[in-house]
Amino acid sequence: MALIVQKYGGTSVGSPDRIKNVARRVAKFKAQGHDLVVVVSAMSGETNRLIALAKEIQSQPDPRELDVIVSTGEQVTIGLLAMALKEQGVDAVSYTGGQVKILTDSAHTKARIQHIDDANMRADLNAGKVVIVAGFQGVDAQGNITTLGRGGSDTSGVALAAALKADECQIYTDVDGVYTTDPRVVPEARKLKTITFEEMLELASLGSKILQIRSVEFAGKYNVKLRVLSSFQEEGEGTLITFEEDSTVEKPVISGIAFNRDEARINVIGVPDKPGIAYQILGPVADANIDVDMIIQNVGQDGTTDFSFTVPKGEYPRALKVLEEVKKHVGAREVSGDDKICKVSIVGVGMRSHVGVASTMFRTLAEEGINIQMISTSEIKISVVLDEKYLELAVRVLHKAFGLEQAA
Amino acid sequence: MALIVQKYGGTSVGSPDRIKNVARRVAKFKAQGHDLVVVVSAMSGETNRLIALAKEIQSQPDPRELDVIVSTGEQVTIGLLAMALKEQGVDAVSYTGGQVKILTDSAHTKARIQHIDDANMRADLNAGKVVIVAGFQGVDAQGNITTLGRGGSDTSGVALAAALKADECQIYTDVDGVYTTDPRVVPEARKLKTITFEEMLELASLGSKILQIRSVEFAGKYNVKLRVLSSFQEEGEGTLITFEEDSTVEKPVISGIAFNRDEARINVIGVPDKPGIAYQILGPVADANIDVDMIIQNVGQDGTTDFSFTVPKGEYPRALKVLEEVKKHVGAREVSGDDKICKVSIVGVGMRSHVGVASTMFRTLAEEGINIQMISTSEIKISVVLDEKYLELAVRVLHKAFGLEQAA
Repeated sequence: MALIVQKYGGTSVGSPDRIKNVARRVAKFKAQGHDLVVVVSAMSGETNRLIALAKEIQSQPDPRELDVIVSTGEQVTIGLLAMALKEQGVDAVSYTGGQVKILTDSAHTKARIQHIDDANMRADLNAGKVVIVAGFQGVDAQGNITTLGRGGSDTSGVALAAALKADECQIYTDVDGVYTTDPRVVPEARKLKTITFEEMLELASLGSKILQIRSVEFAGKYNVKLRVLSSFQEEGEGTLITFEEDSTVEKPVISGIAFNRDEARINVIGVPDKPGIAYQILGPVADANIDVDMIIQNVGQDGTTDFSFTVPKGEYPRALKVLEEVKKHVGAREVSGDDKICKVSIVGVGMRSHVGVASTMFRTLAEEGINIQMISTSEIKISVVLDEKYLELAVRVLHKAFGLEQAA
Repeated sequence: MALIVQKYGGTSVGSPDRIKNVARRVAKFKAQGHDLVVVVSAMSGETNRLIALAKEIQSQPDPRELDVIVSTGEQVTIGLLAMALKEQGVDAVSYTGGQVKILTDSAHTKARIQHIDDANMRADLNAGKVVIVAGFQGVDAQGNITTLGRGGSDTSGVALAAALKADECQIYTDVDGVYTTDPRVVPEARKLKTITFEEMLELASLGSKILQIRSVEFAGKYNVKLRVLSSFQEEGEGTLITFEEDSTVEKPVISGIAFNRDEARINVIGVPDKPGIAYQILGPVADANIDVDMIIQNVGQDGTTDFSFTVPKGEYPRALKVLEEVKKHVGAREVSGDDKICKVSIVGVGMRSHVGVASTMFRTLAEEGINIQMISTSEIKISVVLDEKYLELAVRVLHKAFGLEQAA
């Protein structure tokens, strides 16, 4: 007898048959005596269809009205899932974000949850009903419909679990857990039974797009037990995301390897080395709404410094243009860049207490003749920027070098 | 400077381009200095798509959850229209039924409006905004989403006009007004400049499907000035629906001719003529949820009576089955019927003060050799049931006989 919050993504509810499958799984848990709150996304493709419709009217859709439109995607799914449960003899009731109510700020299309009223849900759970809640959406203090941004249904699930003090929040997705790296690149990649919140945060932000990063932060903040499972497999424990402090077993040095090919590198060479120069370079980039990821500054020659950073590949041409202006302004010698790069990161809380992790990484890459273009480190990860063509090779040799194919 | 409520149906908002057209029309009225509240239906086809989706899950969809699903159709349209207005430089804000709020009873899929809170709309109108409201939907006292039933957007429009004490409620549709009869049957059919509420009620219920009948009742009850116009023509006054008491000009005897082919006739012959017999026959029909329209009882032979009534054509086989049981029970001699019939009705408040209307009708039909199977009369209409094959001929000769092709 536990209170479980389950979240099903768009692929899991992508057709009437899949919705019936989700209902069968929910019914199974219900039959085991658990109380269930189920959070669902829009059917796959539906949110994109609605956004495309809005863009036929306004190329830059009004944020308030866009939220009115896209929030209908989840509203359809909650109704369908409630029907599917009733059809299977399980009493269920659906709630929109506004009906719960999930109170957010008024930042349309990227609102943040401020409070969740659990009174109605509690009453329904006590009456033996399965409660179904539309993910991704809420309502602000003035009653305007808001959405949490892409992937926000994960955040809805975790926030509901926190508000209800649920025993577990289960995120059902099209993968059956978190792997040491992408099995399409390394066939020996192994599913992790547990992973710490910190590692998950690093892996999520580095491109392992299993969970929305805000949902992981939220789970950490409110101490929610979070589990990633497959909605297409009947059995399986998935991957439990734990607090580092909880884990009594010794952690492996490295938990996983993340990578992405979505960034481009920009170099600003020969910049006068004086206070405020970093801001003078990166300020205009931020003003142009271009996200900057890795940032590296080296001491150069003759009182100058070299600046390198990465931006999303799609923003590369625009970023170069901005930097050409900046170059004149700050008196830099040269602006160059490369959009044929990739980023590979090793992540693990174990590296805190183990020396030599970085040197193992660098040696492994050197032995394969892979040149490292940039390095960036944090407490639990080391990222390197490489020529794009080395991505698969680098991930494979690092996976082997850190023994990730062996069970912990 | 007037406060106008405009309602646009599904065909009028059936595509992004049509929504932009509606926005242009609204903007034109706004530029003339009017305050505008715009009620919209779901894009044409959308409600049917959502119902079909629900039926893939549950053949008899749960009413509460069906309302959650289908109400999304109008929610999408309000967002799109608000965007289209903003794109044209007109400030606008959208409201779902729950946001207005339009309070209804809890009769899901056929709810009735109980109260409309006009505070938010008033504030927006005062701030110079166009207010856009989702038709067809409301919310009950517990916060559940409700819908008003098919065509309920008309009722939403009229109810909003009543609550706001609007100067006029304009119903935009794919016809440009109310005609003396269907122009596809009688090319000389003429658009009426005005029609009384009573006549409109009779015409609406008889199959001139321009306005939902409840919206007309509502308009009459709350004294709302109602006008039917075309959303596809730039100019035109449409047809104004008036209170009979208002009209100072003499009314023509007959305003229009309605017809339908959607009914079937059932005869119960040789029923013992005793008190309660009508209930014994029609009670079981009502219990089977079959609507009965025209009912006629004749004195028969030997202390028996003959009973005839019409039912929807789709219910004809089921009704016959029910009546076979009833036949044994009440001791009737025979149950028979015919589903190859049509109903033709002449409607007009003028017939109150003119004698001979019925005889003109019957003589006209007789001259064409058209046999009348059933006759039913009310204060302002006369309906006859005929063999289906005579429908077009009957409508044409009656249209001519009552001089409907000539301007009033």
